[in-house]
Amino acid sequence: MEQEFLDWLMPRLPADARLEIGPGDDAAVLRPPAGRRTVVTVDMLTEGVDFRLGAGCDPCQVGHKALAVGLSDLAAMAARPEAAVVAVCLPRRGGGTIARGIADGISGLAAAHGVALAGGDTNAWDGPVVVSVTVLGSVEPGAAWRRDGARPGDRILATGRFGGSILGRHLAVRPRCAEAAWIARQVPVHAAIDVSDGLSLDLARLMTASGTGALIDLDRVPVHPDADRLAREDGTAPLDHALADGEDFELLLTLAPDAADRLLAADRPFATLLTDIGVVADRPGLRARTADGAIDLPVRGFLHAFDA
Amino acid sequence: MEQEFLDWLMPRLPADARLEIGPGDDAAVLRPPAGRRTVVTVDMLTEGVDFRLGAGCDPCQVGHKALAVGLSDLAAMAARPEAAVVAVCLPRRGGGTIARGIADGISGLAAAHGVALAGGDTNAWDGPVVVSVTVLGSVEPGAAWRRDGARPGDRILATGRFGGSILGRHLAVRPRCAEAAWIARQVPVHAAIDVSDGLSLDLARLMTASGTGALIDLDRVPVHPDADRLAREDGTAPLDHALADGEDFELLLTLAPDAADRLLAADRPFATLLTDIGVVADRPGLRARTADGAIDLPVRGFLHAFDA
Repeated sequence: MEQEFLDWLMPRLPADARLEIGPGDDAAVLRPPAGRRTVVTVDMLTEGVDFRLGAGCDPCQVGHKALAVGLSDLAAMAARPEAAVVAVCLPRRGGGTIARGIADGISGLAAAHGVALAGGDTNAWDGPVVVSVTVLGSVEPGAAWRRDGARPGDRILATGRFGGSILGRHLAVRPRCAEAAWIARQVPVHAAIDVSDGLSLDLARLMTASGTGALIDLDRVPVHPDADRLAREDGTAPLDHALADGEDFELLLTLAPDAADRLLAADRPFATLLTDIGVVADRPGLRARTADGAIDLPVRGFLHAFDA
Repeated sequence: MEQEFLDWLMPRLPADARLEIGPGDDAAVLRPPAGRRTVVTVDMLTEGVDFRLGAGCDPCQVGHKALAVGLSDLAAMAARPEAAVVAVCLPRRGGGTIARGIADGISGLAAAHGVALAGGDTNAWDGPVVVSVTVLGSVEPGAAWRRDGARPGDRILATGRFGGSILGRHLAVRPRCAEAAWIARQVPVHAAIDVSDGLSLDLARLMTASGTGALIDLDRVPVHPDADRLAREDGTAPLDHALADGEDFELLLTLAPDAADRLLAADRPFATLLTDIGVVADRPGLRARTADGAIDLPVRGFLHAFDA
């Protein structure tokens, strides 16, 4: 690990009792909470793919998003985020200004979620901006939500609304950590995932991992107003945007029907929408409920593909 | 986290009891060893700066190095490596072949050091290869070596030999984890760092962190045969290569004189050289001992610099 980037990042954060040795040494030493499991995830954002610096996207937003996507991963496990390390690769020309902006974005979101910034690595090159954030957290043994627990008959719940995230929500990501923590206290959740690559694609991943399928009520899928706006621009139906756009960073959960009913009826300490969008089925694949049965639903979303 | 890269990476490793939930979920869940601190470090390697794919450098070596530099960071803390997560950004053309090579290199070194690969993130773009590895490990509370503990009068010990790493050792990094673990069991170490950016630069960092300086016996600095080879090619003195080249990934340690004597006299379970190269001084800065006193030693090495 190296120090330079942290020189910008760290003064923005208070000293943290969870750090026995903080940034500045070769590695950070953390005091893990006793009796809990360690949860870890890594995500990398690259300029030109995940963001384009310029009008509508500044380095602060990039820093925010780089941490937010990892927090969203932890929310999908019902894990509590605790610490993060950050690696950046920045252009030699103007890299300092970009680093300060990224540090602002990361440290703001870290403070909001009680995340200690534990270290980092700084690199310079004549290429685009790359940011990689590793988030550490914890969960009670056996309490992490996972992808392979969905059971036929489960109801499928979604937080928030979907589609059109490219109009700004893909940067201003609001990870559903508080929502996940509250839900985990209310009811048993059988399976969960966060929607990064598309509602239909990530739902298909959840079902595949569980060896199940999903029957979706398309008219109940919560469509974001951004999807309506985008539909007016590009002629693609709002629902198609909701199913395929991705980068919503909302959660999909499956629960037993009575647990879903209890959860939907409970007084929620947050404004985030919680919607029942369908049921888990024995038969693999995604289908949409129609007046006289069901039709296959194509799985669409964003995949990083190589040619060889 | 995403799955694709792990599809190549994971089949090479046995199931690991430390992973309660492994790759394939949104995050990995680890069973941390009870009563120990968590140690974490992140490093990012970029094509064109840290390596150049082609003659003399294949993707397998890149994967090896990407994990090795993090293991070296943990060695410099006397921490035991336990798990790693990997984020890669690969060119769309040929990225699959590169990914498989990187996975080979990472998984080979991970197996040799008992490191569980816990997850990763895969990205594709039309740019160079970027690999970021986060290594997790553990250490007894208060037992981590740190940079700020050197005391005037301490002896300065170095593992291995220095200089000319660009001839191949910069890729075939051998992290000194076993050496560090053994040394930590023998004697109290006051301060430690690994040499990534240059013997003189990293020694200066160690001294600055401790509020001390160093007086070096230049004729005792262990010069690697690669430094001699390089000197014959470029006319720079072998000792200058040893002091400034970097990427040696050897350890610098400071210890009380009696501890240093005991350590140097002990039967070592490894062939790695251990050399006393000087003493810690009150006066800040680096100096070299001469026949009639000492002269200032310039601090040289590799820095990632931005222009703004």
